[in-house]
This record gives sequence, structure tokens and C-alpha cells, in this order.
Amino acid sequence: MAKSRFEYVREFERENHLLQETYIVIRIDGKGFHKFSQIYEFDKPNDITAIEVLNSAALEIFKQIPDVVFAYGQSDEYSFLLKKNCKLYERREMKLITLFSSLITSAYMYHWNLTHPTNPISIEKKLPVFDARAVIYPNFDVVKDYFRWRQADCHINNLYNTTFWALVLKGEGMTTKDAETYLNGTFSKDKNEILFSKFGINYNNEPEIYKKGTIIIRELNETIMKKDIQHQQPGEEGEVSNRQLQRLEKIVKKAEIKTYHQDLITDEEFWSSRPWLSM
Amino acid sequence: MAKSRFEYVREFERENHLLQETYIVIRIDGKGFHKFSQIYEFDKPNDITAIEVLNSAALEIFKQIPDVVFAYGQSDEYSFLLKKNCKLYERREMKLITLFSSLITSAYMYHWNLTHPTNPISIEKKLPVFDARAVIYPNFDVVKDYFRWRQADCHINNLYNTTFWALVLKGEGMTTKDAETYLNGTFSKDKNEILFSKFGINYNNEPEIYKKGTIIIRELNETIMKKDIQHQQPGEEGEVSNRQLQRLEKIVKKAEIKTYHQDLITDEEFWSSRPWLSM
Amino acid sequence: MAKSRFEYVREFERENHLLQETYIVIRIDGKGFHKFSQIYEFDKPNDITAIEVLNSAALEIFKQIPDVVFAYGQSDEYSFLLKKNCKLYERREMKLITLFSSLITSAYMYHWNLTHPTNPISIEKKLPVFDARAVIYPNFDVVKDYFRWRQADCHINNLYNTTFWALVLKGEGMTTKDAETYLNGTFSKDKNEILFSKFGINYNNEPEIYKKGTIIIRELNETIMKKDIQHQQPGEEGEVSNRQLQRLEKIVKKAEIKTYHQDLITDEEFWSSRPWLSM
Amino acid sequence: MAKSRFEYVREFERENHLLQETYIVIRIDGKGFHKFSQIYEFDKPNDITAIEVLNSAALEIFKQIPDVVFAYGQSDEYSFLLKKNCKLYERREMKLITLFSSLITSAYMYHWNLTHPTNPISIEKKLPVFDARAVIYPNFDVVKDYFRWRQADCHINNLYNTTFWALVLKGEGMTTKDAETYLNGTFSKDKNEILFSKFGINYNNEPEIYKKGTIIIRELNETIMKKDIQHQQPGEEGEVSNRQLQRLEKIVKKAEIKTYHQDLITDEEFWSSRPWLSM
Repeated sequence: MAKSRFEYVREFERENHLLQETYIVIRIDGKGFHKFSQIYEFDKPNDITAIEVLNSAALEIFKQIPDVVFAYGQSDEYSFLLKKNCKLYERREMKLITLFSSLITSAYMYHWNLTHPTNPISIEKKLPVFDARAVIYPNFDVVKDYFRWRQADCHINNLYNTTFWALVLKGEGMTTKDAETYLNGTFSKDKNEILFSKFGINYNNEPEIYKKGTIIIRELNETIMKKDIQHQQPGEEGEVSNRQLQRLEKIVKKAEIKTYHQDLITDEEFWSSRPWLSM
Repeated sequence: MAKSRFEYVREFERENHLLQETYIVIRIDGKGFHKFSQIYEFDKPNDITAIEVLNSAALEIFKQIPDVVFAYGQSDEYSFLLKKNCKLYERREMKLITLFSSLITSAYMYHWNLTHPTNPISIEKKLPVFDARAVIYPNFDVVKDYFRWRQADCHINNLYNTTFWALVLKGEGMTTKDAETYLNGTFSKDKNEILFSKFGINYNNEPEIYKKGTIIIRELNETIMKKDIQHQQPGEEGEVSNRQLQRLEKIVKKAEIKTYHQDLITDEEFWSSRPWLSM
Repeated sequence: MAKSRFEYVREFERENHLLQETYIVIRIDGKGFHKFSQIYEFDKPNDITAIEVLNSAALEIFKQIPDVVFAYGQSDEYSFLLKKNCKLYERREMKLITLFSSLITSAYMYHWNLTHPTNPISIEKKLPVFDARAVIYPNFDVVKDYFRWRQADCHINNLYNTTFWALVLKGEGMTTKDAETYLNGTFSKDKNEILFSKFGINYNNEPEIYKKGTIIIRELNETIMKKDIQHQQPGEEGEVSNRQLQRLEKIVKKAEIKTYHQDLITDEEFWSSRPWLSM
Repeated sequence: MAKSRFEYVREFERENHLLQETYIVIRIDGKGFHKFSQIYEFDKPNDITAIEVLNSAALEIFKQIPDVVFAYGQSDEYSFLLKKNCKLYERREMKLITLFSSLITSAYMYHWNLTHPTNPISIEKKLPVFDARAVIYPNFDVVKDYFRWRQADCHINNLYNTTFWALVLKGEGMTTKDAETYLNGTFSKDKNEILFSKFGINYNNEPEIYKKGTIIIRELNETIMKKDIQHQQPGEEGEVSNRQLQRLEKIVKKAEIKTYHQDLITDEEFWSSRPWLSM
């Protein structure tokens, strides 16, 4: 058969193996979700059911991919942290990011249809589509700053959207264009003030899930952790032993997956109390 | 707001802009589809409805992404050719491949559920997931060999599968393991002979869609083509003029999308009669 | 011995194999040569001996690396074209560019010291250093435009430098700063006019080596070429046969290496008469 | 002028900016130095003058590139460590490695000619050529293991070479082929035994420069260090402040460059006493 004659074309294929001993973050991002939210008539400024659909899809990724230890989601995006010694698909970048974009898509569609029986995904309306990218970070300080960056972004956008949609929907009679003009150039304190004086809304009392986004963690039981992790310090040679790592992996597999909506930016203890995230 | 303090993390992001004036082929590939086909009870050796679901999903890619001019699919894979001067997402590799893997997934799920009302996709059973990769080829001869390679692969696999499942399902009473052992080391002619002598099957008469896979082309009307393309030869400076390219793009947009099941390997005229594929 | 314990560090090494069947151009470029030319007291605007040193170093690259078929040099830079099917060091980018930067450096130093016995390279003054980069081009039209780009650059710079140094050195008594200000915003025709009216210099009569730079070609004898290359057209399958390529390689090895100073920009026949450059 | 018409070719150029906050190691390696050592008649097993030429060339790199803080050399290779926050040439890989390969070449040639007035580099004999590669390491433990790997390699090769050349040169009358065969399959202890029993050589008494290779360090004065570095611990946010870094950079610039021949493999204190190497 002619097979061998054409096999040479494989030599044009390229792989990018992501640098070892670095933290891989994969961020998925909805494509055209502004329009998607209009077509499927999301509540404004936040649609709790749509948020829960994306959160459920993110949980499915935790279930299927044990190397994911932490994730943060807001709006139409989610960032997944893979543990430092992740060997999944030999750390091939293309393989990793396309599987994440594909799996988030099928899980999203599944949960959407489950929770929206009268408004299911229709190809005539619009299909949900997510892109994905991988970024590697050489140390955990930068990883923390990455997630702080996303949560800062959540805060800025949610404060804006909450004020914007109050102006449009809550009796001010502004068009979306009016509201945009009105908010142009305002600072955080101005928006807080508008919300409070015009609508009696104290932004601080808004639901945490909207203000902080959603955090998912493969969470270790503290007792187990104390017993098994406490000596997981680098050995003489600065390396965690293979035996220690294998035991750690078993523990992580049995770990509960938990969801939070809280501060990542200033709460250093949030991070320091979970040493396994950086191991 | 703390935003700017964390923005530096963006400097760790990387882009790979695929080399200009090369042909981009994006191949999507089902993950764990052997198991998927068992769980959702595909007909063996070929499940025509499942094939049509993937073909419909591939057509959705043609509808949404005008730069795709040609595609070839077989088994659980599809390869899409983007035109040489494609500028989509500035040819960013990660963006391109994740959108393809995501879109094929949502379109697959949509068409699956549409055609399998009593056997819809269930998260408890298995979600469909596709990886994707991009490969660039510097000239059209290699592009043709790429698609020949995939079709040669289709032939080899389909002949094997047709013989294998005949042995298992058509009264020989072989287990799958028996059949595997039986076929070990056989050549094409042996399998043809087994099919004919044991089952009265002339492999040549098997449906073309199984033997050749599926070809999708953005097809130009010949009359239009003759008028508009005939002088699309490189100009003095070896370049197609911008005006010519813009005209070509309009034509391609109006082009019909057609599906074929035929030979790509020896039929040189198949390619030479469609000069717009390499432009 | 502890060897194996540390071998794992090799897994952090990366290679970039340059895409096959593309043209590799490697451009070397002097680092800090403006200062180098002051320290070693180059004639201005052009120092013929220094140009010849770089040309001799480029010729040494032709002698040592048979895959180099064409080169173009001007000022303190040189661009080398490797033939399309070059397999040198498996087309590893890092290996290729560092060998070019190293070899041009040692050959430059050797020829400099040979031609400047009273002004040899001194580490206290300054060592010659060259960086290098590789760029791949998917077709020969872009390759030609690449070399036209460098020659256009040569023209612009040489016209400027010729006028600038005439103003400074030829009795106008301008400082270098005055001359810079004087030429600011002028067009080519203005500089031509300044040269002619003030200094009686017709720029067209300046030496070709300064106006056009230096071209080096692995040149085939026409008779041999006609006999051996005339049928080197792509075969049925669009491929040059292996046998043909091997014969071509033998011819190229026996080829003379010739040097020219002529137009690359408008003279299409220059390129079309040398089909082996693009093979 | 035609310039702009060709400028588009620049879009084919690529850069690889090496990941920030990682350690860059650049290793240069002599090309064909086995032959080079024969042509220029090196003493065997080690030629002290040739070693000193390479060491002097490496020192020139320290003088010209302040970001180099540590280096290790043996045989015809040298590895240079750049500090973690190095921004040289925006960490562009091609720029960095070609400048290292070029500078080591010119410095080598300069020092060779200086120390070998009767046996200078000749283009007819052979020019010295060095390739170079960059590798990035995400943490200092791997960096230390990298240098341990090179020193382990030095040990293995030097023990072999010392034994090999003793067999050939010291009255055993072996040909090089005989010696190769004789040593095939021997372990370290066997070679030590051969040296001792046949030639009265105690390998441990061989010169350190041969057994350990050469280490070059930008060395901080301890008093200065204690005063200025002691609080260079990560701040609250896990970051060294900019002010601290600037002060550190000033200190490093004033540092002495020192050369050693000692153990890197088991002597952990060697590393721990020089915290600035990992900053």
C-alpha cells in the first residue's frame, strides 16, 4: 500500500513540551459570549444559572484530570492550575489546551441543556465555543499573582456591570449607550457612590460569587495533611523524594473538591495554609 | 485598584504565529473514541449515523470559518485546510486549534443529540472530546501528500475493520481476540481474499464513504471560475495582486460547500481542476 | 559515578528544527561596528579593505558549508541562503546560527590580521563580534524580496553616507552634527543634487561595490547546467527525484564560487537564469 | 525608494524570548576540537596552555557581560550562568547565543595568538569554531545539578584520558587503538588501579584543574555582602524590592571575578555560601 510514500509528511509536525518543573495554567475563555448571553437571554448583570453551568463544567475537568489542583473562574473564563510535576501528555501544549477547550465545551453544553430544558443550545442560535491557552510560571509567587490578577479583573468588571445595569434596568430609564457615557471616566468610589445614592445598593453586600468569582480546590483533609505532608520538605539535595511524591499523589486523588467565593488578593493565609498547591 | 500590580504576569504569555504564506492544516481527533463507540453502541465496522454526525460537525466549521477551503474526514478524525493567505486570529496557533477543537465538540454534541433522541450524550456515560493540532506545509505538493496519507490510512483501517468484524459478527463465531490473532501479519490481498471466500464480500463494492472517507470542498462554479480565476496567475513580481485576491475571496464566499467520497491518492486531476485550493 | 543522577537536567534542553522544504536565510550582523570602525580607523564613507575582510570571511563560509548557495553582504552584515533541502545539523536553529556567528568571527579576525599587520585586532581596543539569526521563507519569491530588501537598504545607507561624509570631509567644514542636521528630511534626489552641485560627484559613477554591496554565488557552468539540469523539472508527483537531487548536489559541489556587485532588485533575469538557487 | 515594497519580509522573522524569572545557562562547545587539538599539537591528556586560553576567553565574557555571575569550563566547553532577572537583549535567545559563540571565538583566537606566537591560528590549518545553546531552568536546585552534571562529565573524561594517554605515551607502547580496546568496559576503580600499578600515578594527586575543571565566579566581598545582602529576603509579597535589586546590581558590578578548581558535586556549602548566585 502507498502508506509509506506519504509518511514523510509527519516530519512537518511540531510539539511544544512545556518546560518541566514549572506551573502550567490553562485559561479557557468564551468566544463571543457577550452575544451568546444576549441570544440565550442571560439575567443582567449576573445570571446565576449560567455561572453555575460554567462552574459545573469546570468541576467536570477536576473529575477527569487529577493533575488539576486549583481553578478560578469569573465571567466567561476559567483558569486551571496543574501541579508542578504534571506529566500529562508529556506536557505537550497543543494536546493539553485542545483537550481543555473541548472538554469544557461538551461539559458546558451538557449542563446547559440539563438546566435549561426550555432554552436548550441550538445550532441556529449559537453554539458555545471556548478558546484556551497555556502559560507556564517558574515559581508560585507568580502563580498567586496570576490568580490575583484575574480576581482583580473580576472586581473591576463586576462593579462596572452592577452599576451599568442598575442605571439601565432600575428606573433611571437610561439606554445602554447613556449608561456607558455616564460611567465613562468614573473611579471605583464613584460607582460605589452611584449605586448607594441612586439605588440604595451597598456594593459590599452584593453576593460573594459575583464580587469574588469562583475558586475550586482539590482540598486536603487537615488531619491527613498534617500526618502525611508535614515532612514533605525538600531533602538534602533540595528534592522531594519519589516516595514522598507518590504518597502525596495518592492523597490528592482522595482529596475532596471544594468550591469557594473569597478573597485571593490580600489573604496570604489562604495560600500559605495549602502548601500542596505549590508542590 | 490593585490591577496594575499584577499585570506583569502577562509577560509570561507566549504566542506562536504560524509562518505566513504556508498552508495550515488543522487535524481534530476524537479522544478515547474506541470506548466512546462501545458506550454509545456504534454499528460495526462502520456506523453511518455516527459518521454523519461528524460530517455535519465538520460542515458547521465550513459555515463558521470561511478560510477553510477543504477538509478530509475518516474514523474519528478530520483535517481542515486553511487557505495559504489565511490571517484568522493573526495565525495564532493556540487560538486556532482550541477554537477548532471546541467548535467541533459543540457541533458534534448538537448533531448527536438531534439524531439520537433516545441515546443522547450523557455525562455519566462519556462526553465527546476532541484534541486538535496545527501543522504548516510550505507548498501544495506536501499538502496533497498529507491528505493522501490520511486517505491511505483510511483504506488500511477500513479493510482491516471490515474483515475483522465480518469474522466476529458474520457466523464464524470468532471472538474479537480470535479475529485479531487470525489477521495478524496478513496483507491487503489476504484480507480481500478472506472477505470474498468466507463471506462473499467484494471489498471493491463496499460503500465509498467507508473506503474513501469524506471530502468537503468549498467548490467554485466552473463558469464563474473560468471567468474570474483564469488570469489569477502570479503577476510580474510573482505575486497575486490584492485586487485579484479580494475578488477571489468574494467568489469563495459564495461558493457551494460540497461533499465527496472519492480517490485523492492517484487522481491528480482531482487536484489540478481545483486551482483555488492552493491559492 | 554520580553521572546518572544529574542526567535528568538534559530534559530541559530544547531544539527548534527549522521547517523542512523552506529556504533558510542566516543573517550575521556586526555588533557595535560603528564604534569598531572608529577604533580601527576605517576610511569614510567606505573602507575597501574592511569590506574585503568581511567578503573573505563570507567566502570562508562558502568553502566550509556546501549548502550555502548564495549570499549578499553590505556594511557590517551578510545574509547566507541555504538550499531548500538543506539537512545540515538536522536544521537545528541554535546549532546553525551559532556556527555561522562563530565561523564568521574567526574568519574575520584571521583576514583582518592578515591585511592589517600594523593595526591588528587587540582585545584592549575591541574584539569583532557578530550576532546571527535564521529566518525561513516558504517560497523563492519571498527569498528574492528578502535580498532586494537588503540591497535597497544598502542603497539608502550608502547614498546617505556618501553625502554625509562629503559634507564633513570635503572642504565644507561641517561637523558630523551639522551634516546630520543638514541632511535631515532630504530625499534621494536631494542627496544626489548635493553631491553633484557641491562636490561634482555623480553618484551613479560611484563604485558598484559600495552602491550594490557584494553578491556571492555558487555558480554553475552553463554547459554543464544545460545538460544536467534541464530536466530537473518536478516529476509527475511534483517531486524532484532523489537521483536527480544527488546529481545536482555533485554539480553544486564542483561549482565555482563567484562574486558580483550588481542589481538584484529590478533585474529579474539575474534570478531566472540561475534556477539551481531555488531548487 | 523601493524600500517599503520589500519590508514585508520582516514578518517572517521570529524571536524566542526566554521565559522570565528563570535561570539562563549558555553552553559553548568547540566544534571539531578533537581534530583541532591534533592539528595544533596539544599536549596529551591535558594541554595547560590551551586550557588557559579558553579560561581567558571565558573571563573576557565576564568582563563584557555583567549579567554572567558564574561559569564552569572543562575540555572544549564552557557553561555560563546568567542571573535570574537578566534582561539582556530582552532575553532573546538567538541574540544571546550568537553573541556568546562569537565573543568566545574572537577572545579565544586573540589569546591563542598571544600565547602561541610560533603556532598561531592559520586558516589553512583550522579556525576555532564554537557552537552555543541556551537552556532555561526554573529553580536553582536544577541549576546546581546542571553544573554537577558537567563536573561529573569532566571527572569521567579526565580519568579516562589520563589512563588512555598513560598507556599510549608512558612506555607501554600501546597504540591508541590498543588502549581503547584495553579500557573498554573498565570502571573508575579499574582505571585508578591501572594508573597506580602500571605507572605509579595516584589519580587523586593529579592537578585539580584537570580533575575538577575551572569555575569562575563573580565573587562578593563577605563584609559587603553581610551588610548589603543580609536583608535581601523576599518581602511580604514574596518579591525582592526594586530598590534592593538595584543595590544588589551595583554590588555585583564591583565584585571581583575569581577562578577556582574544586568540587561542585558534594560540597553543598560551596553553593549555600554564595546566595547571590541564585538571586
